[in-house]
Amino acid sequence: MAGRSALETYKQGGSWWETEISDIKKNEIIIRGKRIEDLIGNISYSQMLYFLLCGKELTDNQAKLFESVLVAGADHGPRAPSIAAARMAATCGVSFNSAVATGVNMLGDVHGGAVEDAMALLYETERIQLKNEHAVADKLSELLESGQKLPGFGHQLHDNDPRVQRLYELSHLLIESGEISGNYLRILEDYRGTISSIKNRRFTINVDGISAAVQCELGVPAEAAKGIFSLSRGMGIVAHAYEERKNGTLIKGPCPNEEKLVRYTGKRVEESEQS
Amino acid sequence: MAGRSALETYKQGGSWWETEISDIKKNEIIIRGKRIEDLIGNISYSQMLYFLLCGKELTDNQAKLFESVLVAGADHGPRAPSIAAARMAATCGVSFNSAVATGVNMLGDVHGGAVEDAMALLYETERIQLKNEHAVADKLSELLESGQKLPGFGHQLHDNDPRVQRLYELSHLLIESGEISGNYLRILEDYRGTISSIKNRRFTINVDGISAAVQCELGVPAEAAKGIFSLSRGMGIVAHAYEERKNGTLIKGPCPNEEKLVRYTGKRVEESEQS
Amino acid sequence: MAGRSALETYKQGGSWWETEISDIKKNEIIIRGKRIEDLIGNISYSQMLYFLLCGKELTDNQAKLFESVLVAGADHGPRAPSIAAARMAATCGVSFNSAVATGVNMLGDVHGGAVEDAMALLYETERIQLKNEHAVADKLSELLESGQKLPGFGHQLHDNDPRVQRLYELSHLLIESGEISGNYLRILEDYRGTISSIKNRRFTINVDGISAAVQCELGVPAEAAKGIFSLSRGMGIVAHAYEERKNGTLIKGPCPNEEKLVRYTGKRVEESEQS
Amino acid sequence: MAGRSALETYKQGGSWWETEISDIKKNEIIIRGKRIEDLIGNISYSQMLYFLLCGKELTDNQAKLFESVLVAGADHGPRAPSIAAARMAATCGVSFNSAVATGVNMLGDVHGGAVEDAMALLYETERIQLKNEHAVADKLSELLESGQKLPGFGHQLHDNDPRVQRLYELSHLLIESGEISGNYLRILEDYRGTISSIKNRRFTINVDGISAAVQCELGVPAEAAKGIFSLSRGMGIVAHAYEERKNGTLIKGPCPNEEKLVRYTGKRVEESEQS
Repeated sequence: MAGRSALETYKQGGSWWETEISDIKKNEIIIRGKRIEDLIGNISYSQMLYFLLCGKELTDNQAKLFESVLVAGADHGPRAPSIAAARMAATCGVSFNSAVATGVNMLGDVHGGAVEDAMALLYETERIQLKNEHAVADKLSELLESGQKLPGFGHQLHDNDPRVQRLYELSHLLIESGEISGNYLRILEDYRGTISSIKNRRFTINVDGISAAVQCELGVPAEAAKGIFSLSRGMGIVAHAYEERKNGTLIKGPCPNEEKLVRYTGKRVEESEQS
Repeated sequence: MAGRSALETYKQGGSWWETEISDIKKNEIIIRGKRIEDLIGNISYSQMLYFLLCGKELTDNQAKLFESVLVAGADHGPRAPSIAAARMAATCGVSFNSAVATGVNMLGDVHGGAVEDAMALLYETERIQLKNEHAVADKLSELLESGQKLPGFGHQLHDNDPRVQRLYELSHLLIESGEISGNYLRILEDYRGTISSIKNRRFTINVDGISAAVQCELGVPAEAAKGIFSLSRGMGIVAHAYEERKNGTLIKGPCPNEEKLVRYTGKRVEESEQS
Repeated sequence: MAGRSALETYKQGGSWWETEISDIKKNEIIIRGKRIEDLIGNISYSQMLYFLLCGKELTDNQAKLFESVLVAGADHGPRAPSIAAARMAATCGVSFNSAVATGVNMLGDVHGGAVEDAMALLYETERIQLKNEHAVADKLSELLESGQKLPGFGHQLHDNDPRVQRLYELSHLLIESGEISGNYLRILEDYRGTISSIKNRRFTINVDGISAAVQCELGVPAEAAKGIFSLSRGMGIVAHAYEERKNGTLIKGPCPNEEKLVRYTGKRVEESEQS
Repeated sequence: MAGRSALETYKQGGSWWETEISDIKKNEIIIRGKRIEDLIGNISYSQMLYFLLCGKELTDNQAKLFESVLVAGADHGPRAPSIAAARMAATCGVSFNSAVATGVNMLGDVHGGAVEDAMALLYETERIQLKNEHAVADKLSELLESGQKLPGFGHQLHDNDPRVQRLYELSHLLIESGEISGNYLRILEDYRGTISSIKNRRFTINVDGISAAVQCELGVPAEAAKGIFSLSRGMGIVAHAYEERKNGTLIKGPCPNEEKLVRYTGKRVEESEQS
């Protein structure tokens, strides 16, 4: 972080809140230089999100590819902490949006967070490649030697995730039409091949990996990945919280009240009373 | 809430987590009876959201109208608590998704919440109209007599909100093509006329009101409105949180450190020391 | 809510943020008219909380009774949604405070929320009693006739909750010493007797009920009850989130991946493919 | 993180949720081997928190010192993002606990987070000192050379924070009575002296620094610091959210609607329409 002080900006005549994103006045809502009424109905959800975030416009096909990433991550059922937390919150008497916030609060470095790491890696590798043709191999050695994980590979449940193949196919249509370069998808594939031969077993790209490559192709900033995933998984969070609310169950815990599911492994009362 | 107990369901052989929304198995992700790979690339964000939520599919034009509502609510600048809170969180060293959750947590009964109230009113009025042709006038009297507000009208800043006119026009295209009935838009308009003549001044439909009517036309459940708005305003929240993070400002409070902006109105030290 | 507009206050020369609670200047922190350095070390947690909230000071014994309520609610194990959500968040790579926020977000109208309802009922009953000696019976009839629940009675697990008896005993010591009136405890007991005889079965006061009566005795505002409970259960949330982080488990869902625990009850793929 | 898999534990006959903290059965609540009824009324808030977290008991004087740290951090007025966010949430129609969660969500790496960093540094330095008498100087060089900040020093507002002096005095009483070792306070002081002489200006310990040293003296784990601060600042969050709710203001943004306070710095509409 650059560390520019808001107070200094303000003292030098700037405003406390400065934004390039939107200008809100009476009966006038300007988004990145466009009137809101010219956007509504002419721009899709994924185009609007990209426009707000980057100030540039995606073509229709690019926007559809971005949308595909959002759709792909929408749900992974009630065993995912994000979904389960939102469902539990829905049974505890909070405002619906607070149930959504509860689910979204789960989507950190670990739960969906590999997209950001993979994007950062792909962007960095692409920059290094300009002067070093062994960028992938070198970067991979660096990661492995420092004990880090290669982000975007492997999944605790799937080894042939249907989302990955589909996003792969869809992105190749845009490579063919020249609407994306294909560079980042090639780098990702290169990482897959390199690590597979080093480790001598087949590595599979996971949904985080393919989502990362596609978003790099579209110029999405890596640092925004967790926020974007909030809006993707957000769809599932909203739907599951709604379903749980409709059930009308009250205070639903994470699992049934069975001894084998929850166990106290601490001191017994007797021990401590003797002490 | 119906109050079905999860424990009873479970004891009768049901599962702890039951859902009609998704089925996740190894290399298989089923959403409402469709394979995820058949949805990705074939369905837009708003179609996916509706499908997850309602289990039914919107036509392309209906989906675009739903999407228009999502785009319309995306941003209202850093003076909106949802946007400001997310921006502040972005300067406090939390995970990006937690900054998003912070913004989403603001979108309660008051901030965007009128959509749910207005939808509930429109749905109820439509049901009453089946047997009572004065449903609007009767319902309005009831509201006013009990000191309640008519949801969906008036705004603290706008009196001719550009989003309202645009959403109105877009929905009329679908009334003409028969893809929505127009019933709820008519009821909303009826409320506008009735209250304006009772109060003897021009009432204006606000963005919550038009968003409510459009979503009723599409069969969206009123109880899901706050969740859906989380995903609409969520776009602005993500973009503003990202912009603030890029600035790199640390611990940015809500307003500059000027005496007139924050005032202590409690006891002075002297007073209490004498006591 | 009274609906005073911050903008009007501001335009009339007030400040945007006005507070009676604290005044923060360079090297000076005033809390309700007292210097922070005079509070630190001289005032307990529960005294500080009460002082911040109410601007008045509890005696040492009153403060200990308030503290007892905070200690009583501190934990109810990982089957409580608040604890489970915080533990899950701790495995998802968010900032520790965000894991705490996730747990706190659960403590709504239903999960711990009965304290507020019970306090409101006790305060209201006490006011009515000034002119109506049958206040308890009348209020109870009113509740039952309108299909509402009597807050503060019954528990899904405990029927002889050890916390209730203990808080009861501790509060009676202060009735004897005249440091609390005992009015609200008597009203609560009166409700217990009245509903037991109406329903012809023994009703038991739960931890929400006794916590409500004790806090009424101390003059705690009912509307603050959910916030106070956040700080009570907050202790358990912090401890459980810490324990889960130490385990180092990644993305831990609500329950093991067993078919009988999570079930999809929606459409099968075949059905939808035929349509 | 150690990365123990919950699934593996479970498959090997363990439970899904294992905890040393509490055991909840019908009419029985065991906390770390003690019955809840033996804790209520006999243990203070800070003792309970420490006992839940560490499974050990603080002496009364140690507990009071820990409590002093909690009291010291309780409030820093509405310009602090944690307080402001909670106040804003209180005007937006969410459950009170969700307003608290919103404030708590702010207390990340930056806002109060230096306590954790300072504790980690103090613990590490103490370990290094066992074999290296220049541990402070060496560690400081290491930090400064890598461009890192020394945590626990300096404040944007205070240069003689009244909380610091007071906590310093209180902790010295326990050094004298032998209830804490004083090692970590000495290390902190050593860092102050060393950096002051390197940089040739007076550095001041801030409230994060002294809170860190005191908590190290008590054996609090560094990793729990942000959670503990949630319960300290939580008091102020609850009080300010309550005050704002009482005001009844609706949708209160972060600052008054004045042009100089919020400025759009993006494209103007004209520019984009020409493109």
